[in-house]
Formats: sequence, C-alpha cells, structure tokens
Amino acid sequence: MSEYIEHDRNAISVGIVEKKYFTFADPPGEMVLESGAGLGPITLAYETYGSLNADKSNVVLIPHALSGDSHVAGYYQPEDKNPGWWDNMVGPGKGIDTDKYFVVCSNIIGSCMGSTGPNSINPKTGLPYALDFPVVTIGDMVQAQKALMDHLGIEKILSVVGGSIGGMQVLEWCVRYPEMVVSAIPLATTTRHSALAIAFNEVARQAIMADPKWNNGNYYSGPKPDLGLAVARMIGHITYLSDKSMRLKFGRRLQDKSDFSFNFDADFQVESYLRYQGRKFVDRFDANSFLYITKAADYYDLEKQHGNGSSVEAFSRTKARFLVVSFTSDWLYPTYQSRDMVKAMKKNGLDVSFCEIEADWGHDAFLIPNERLTTMIRGFLERVSHANE
Amino acid sequence: MSEYIEHDRNAISVGIVEKKYFTFADPPGEMVLESGAGLGPITLAYETYGSLNADKSNVVLIPHALSGDSHVAGYYQPEDKNPGWWDNMVGPGKGIDTDKYFVVCSNIIGSCMGSTGPNSINPKTGLPYALDFPVVTIGDMVQAQKALMDHLGIEKILSVVGGSIGGMQVLEWCVRYPEMVVSAIPLATTTRHSALAIAFNEVARQAIMADPKWNNGNYYSGPKPDLGLAVARMIGHITYLSDKSMRLKFGRRLQDKSDFSFNFDADFQVESYLRYQGRKFVDRFDANSFLYITKAADYYDLEKQHGNGSSVEAFSRTKARFLVVSFTSDWLYPTYQSRDMVKAMKKNGLDVSFCEIEADWGHDAFLIPNERLTTMIRGFLERVSHANE
Repeated sequence: MSEYIEHDRNAISVGIVEKKYFTFADPPGEMVLESGAGLGPITLAYETYGSLNADKSNVVLIPHALSGDSHVAGYYQPEDKNPGWWDNMVGPGKGIDTDKYFVVCSNIIGSCMGSTGPNSINPKTGLPYALDFPVVTIGDMVQAQKALMDHLGIEKILSVVGGSIGGMQVLEWCVRYPEMVVSAIPLATTTRHSALAIAFNEVARQAIMADPKWNNGNYYSGPKPDLGLAVARMIGHITYLSDKSMRLKFGRRLQDKSDFSFNFDADFQVESYLRYQGRKFVDRFDANSFLYITKAADYYDLEKQHGNGSSVEAFSRTKARFLVVSFTSDWLYPTYQSRDMVKAMKKNGLDVSFCEIEADWGHDAFLIPNERLTTMIRGFLERVSHANE
Repeated sequence: MSEYIEHDRNAISVGIVEKKYFTFADPPGEMVLESGAGLGPITLAYETYGSLNADKSNVVLIPHALSGDSHVAGYYQPEDKNPGWWDNMVGPGKGIDTDKYFVVCSNIIGSCMGSTGPNSINPKTGLPYALDFPVVTIGDMVQAQKALMDHLGIEKILSVVGGSIGGMQVLEWCVRYPEMVVSAIPLATTTRHSALAIAFNEVARQAIMADPKWNNGNYYSGPKPDLGLAVARMIGHITYLSDKSMRLKFGRRLQDKSDFSFNFDADFQVESYLRYQGRKFVDRFDANSFLYITKAADYYDLEKQHGNGSSVEAFSRTKARFLVVSFTSDWLYPTYQSRDMVKAMKKNGLDVSFCEIEADWGHDAFLIPNERLTTMIRGFLERVSHANE
C-alpha cells in the first residue's frame, strides 16, 4: 500500500520505535479459541507510540488488516526507507496525535510478523505448526489483544480504530468487551463477509494450495509456494483498487515498449505492477498466514456470533460512540454494508457519526493520505476525549 | 453460464444441428495476422441455423465470447443434456428467429473447440503449436470469419450480434468490413479493455503459467495444468457475476454443513460453486487457448487500431445501424464504456439505439434469459430487415 505514497524521510514522525513482545497463555493455561481448540503459548508482537497518561484514559488501539503488522508508524532504524503502514495518520500532530494519545498496535495471531502463527514453532513438536495451527477467528485475535491490554494495565480504551479486517476487529472489540471501549472507528469494513468477498479470498487460497511447493502447508524446510502466493496477492491487490483508480494510474499505458510484444510478457504497466506486487509480497509474507487470515475474515459474522443473526441484537450491549466511514469506490466492502451497521447501531440508541468519503482509490482509500479522513478522525477523538474527561 | 438455466429438453429449439468445418489459407497462402506473422492452414468450426433466403439478405452472424464455441443453439444428439450456449435467444420464434434468419456462428481462432488454435497440429513440426501459435487479435478472428463468409457466398450481413469478447468482434466487423455490415448489436462490451479488465486477465494467466504442469505451454503429451486453469476460471467467473447476484444466489449459506469446519475445506456454498466451476472447465477447455484469447481481449483497442486514438474516427467509415446494450451490474464492462462508444457513433451521424438494462446478474446478464433483451433484439432485427428490403 505504501507504494502509492512518496515518503518524505524528513517529514514529522514518531521517530524511532521498537517492536516489543508479550507472551501469555503458557500451557496448560492455553487460550480457548472460538473453534474450541486451545492455543498456547501465544506471543504478540506490539508497538506503542506516545505516552500513557496518569489516569490511563488516552489509549488508542489500532488493529491492522490482512498484510499489516504492529509497525503502524515511525522507523525501526534511522536508515529505514519506509515508515510504518499508517504513518500519514499516526504521529505528532497527525490525525491520531501521538502527542495526545497512547497508541498501541499488535500483530494479529495467525500472522507472520512476530505474533504466533502457522510459521511459529509448535511446542508439542518442535517444528513449525504449518496446518496444525488452529483456525483462528477475528474474535480470537481480539481476545489475544485483550490479554495484551491486561498486561499493559489498560482497563479503558478511548478508541479502537481500524480498516478492513482491522475494522472487523474494531467491531468485535465493541461487542466482546463493551465496558472497555469508549469509542470506535470502523473504516471500510463490514459486519459480515459477503459472498463476493469470500469468493475472492477462496480463489486466492486455491492459488496458494494449487502450488505444489505449498505441500499441504509443509514448506518451512524447503522451497516456498512463492508463485501461488504471488497470484493470491495479485488477486487481492485488484480488489483493493477500483476501476477508476486503475484507469487513472495505469490506463492502457505500455511498459517500456512502443507497441505490443505479441507474446505473453507484461505489455501493459498494470501487468508489470501486479507482477511486481506479487513478487514483493512473497519476500515478506507467509503463505499459510494468508490462508488463516483470509479464512478468519470469511468466517466473520457479527450477527451470527453475537446477535443470533440480528445485527441490532449484536450491538445491543455496546456502549461505544462510533465514527463509521466508507469510501465511494470501495467495492469489496461497499457503502451499503456500512449503512447497515449504522442502522443497527442507531436502533440501539448509540451515538453514531457516519460518513461516506468520495474517493477513487477503492478499498485501499482508508490507507491513503486523505485530509477529510484525517480531520474527521482528529475531531472525533477530541470529542470523545472531552466527553470522557 | 448454462448452470444458471434449467433446460427444458422439450422446449422449442432449432433441434439437431451439425458442426461443420471450413479450411483455408493453405500454405503458401497463409493469412497475415495483425502481428505480421502468418497462419495457415486455418480451420474454422462453424454451425448454421435456419435457411439462407434467395437474396442472401437474412444473415445473422454471432461471434462468441471467451469460452464459447460454434454451438450457439440446439443439440448435437437427441440425448444431449444441454443445448448450445445461447439457446434461449436463438431458435424458432425466439429473439433471433431461425424461422426468419440464417444464423452463423464459428469458433474463433486461438480457441480449442474445433478451430485452429494452440492445441492444433503445427504443419511445420507435426506437433501441437503450443506457444509457437502466433498471438492473434480480435481483428484476426474477424478476418478469419470474413473468409468463412466468402466461402458461404455471403456478401451482406444483416446483423452481427455478440456480447463481451463477441461484442468486440461485432465492433471490429463494423469498422473492418463496413460495406458488409447492415446492423450490429454489441452487448456488454467495450471498444478497449480497461486496466481493471486487463488486470483480471493477467492474474488469471499468471495462475496458469504458475502451474509447473503448464511447462511453458508444452503439456499436450503429458499432464495438463488443470489446477492453474481452474484458478484462472474461478477468477474469471467472479468477474462475470456481481455483488448482488452472489448475495442472492449464495449469501453466506454453508455447504452441507451445520457450522464452520475450522479447516480449509469449502465451508460456504460460493466456495463449492467456484471449485466446481474450475474443475468442470478444465475438462472442456485448453489452458493455452485461455492465454491466447484473454491476450486478444487485452490488446483490443478499436481507437488505437482504427482511429489513431479516436473512437469517433474509428467509427467514421462504419455504416451499420446499432443497438448497443449494457447491464447495470456489469462491472467488467460498465455502462460508461457503452455510453462512450454510443457517443462516438452518434458523432458520426449513425443510427444508434442504446439501452442499459437493469439486471443483477453482472457481466453474464447478456447470456441469461431476459425478456426485455429478447424483445429489444427481436424488434431491432425486424426494423433493420424492413429497412434493408
């Protein structure tokens, strides 16, 4: 996603940050998952930005999306080329102002960026879990984050903020731990994955599983299913963009050519771009993690899990104030899905602001610098801070 | 596509039809392709329905889309389960009435349904062409169809009718052989493939080429790249549907299960459906043909090829009357692309009717029985028949 953004290394930033680790659920005290399986020990990689105030009332928790990690802002090393994945929003004086708020972001379980996932060592075998890793849910990810909050001594969260799969975690926090969440900002997300979204995830998974190097998940000691994972990433990448953003960014421009190649090379810039995105992704992401996290997203169904099929009932115990944001060109989680959740929140008498932002960038719009989104989040956080004083 | 439709074996139909073959461009008289390469001999598989009238003024030519073939209507054998791919539109008393019109449909070159394509024998080697088959274009497909028309003694075509890649051939006919085409019905199509459409095709091709069994196209004497082709088909299949059609058809319904499996089986009906579509496709389609035909679609650019970049100029030699139809939920070739071509046609003073049909079925809507589409095509053909008398 950062490929859209020209990073100015001298821009205001939280500066150098450190990835930390917290381990819990040591056997026999395993964490019980929604599936009924147990998982432990669990390590969460996390980062914090800004300072926790005396009454611990300034916590902003940011759950991340599919390929994200705990590194939401700043740099690990002075020489790092790119900052964290939401550096345009999180930092001193920014939309989520680290001079005011204590920001926490942890890598989700099932991922491969420092938290326990399928590429972690299974203590029972001494080998990577691979497919012995249990299928985890959005609820399980949130349950693990709750353990981290307990560890940090945090009892109230001023705001949980996140987009896409991060937005699902935001909603899950509100219904699972209603006493803890003062406010919430679900961005470009849904209370339940649509058939279209499931379909794209399933095809991406099939692309990975069709790669013989995937080897039923057992590739950690041999060659990785890079080709399958690259195709999966390319599929995902298209769904994060939009017809218009692709037309503006690429159109039918050719790549380093004056005319068609009349072979199966990449003729068009959009082809080269997707191939590059696929290649780049396999260097940093684990194919099994892609399977687990997309499955968690597909399983996500707030109504089913918390409301006996009713979104109104699902939000009935929630006390949070909400800022719900969708984007006009997001066809993965279209605005009508945000409107549906807003309706259900309002039927519960909740304090909800809703905004559909006019943006061409498709689903990824929530990650792209956007003055309107920044202003809205800043204003909402100020309002809930004051109300919370 | 036919999976949407319950076929009534006793319904009115053209009945039993026969696939015929026409071979031309025998060396050294090869057909010169847009790339400059030569191809020959070329065989076209084709079918005809109804009778050619005395003055040969009742010809309707139907070019087909990506996975189609010459079998547009009727049955090869009395015991066939399913009729041709557009049986709901083509037959006695139907929208394209075989009691009135002489309908011709031929399999496109590059395909694998009887016409010359990458799985045909290369006369120079005695082996299948594989990737030695030249990259063909929509223009090349139409040039080959022109040879078939000459062979059949047809000098005027009352109407060229087709959707999607078939629609591109419709447009190409109008600008390439303007004296021959009395009218044209391009459905759910575009004058140039968008970056989004190219992106989906490219990812599908990458899925095929990532399959080691693809073997750089040389798999005709060994195992086929079935897994890669199945993923490619699944990607394509999603783009033919729509968010709404998938919601109505599948929603989040589970497949033969009362709850989640918590593994990577197909939990949801939409997953089973896509896997089934993928599996079914590999039995009837050649992976290399998928590469060639999608590449032809991506290259398609009427403006560039025939108008120096201007669609107005591209249509300037055309004399056909047009019925242009788009569908509200088609996000592969959205309505704005049809509107653009209609504008360019009108700037040339052409007789154009345009209709955007409200339909939930996405791009595939042009293939689904639709009374409004049937009525419109019937009426348009009657009008141009009378004008042509």
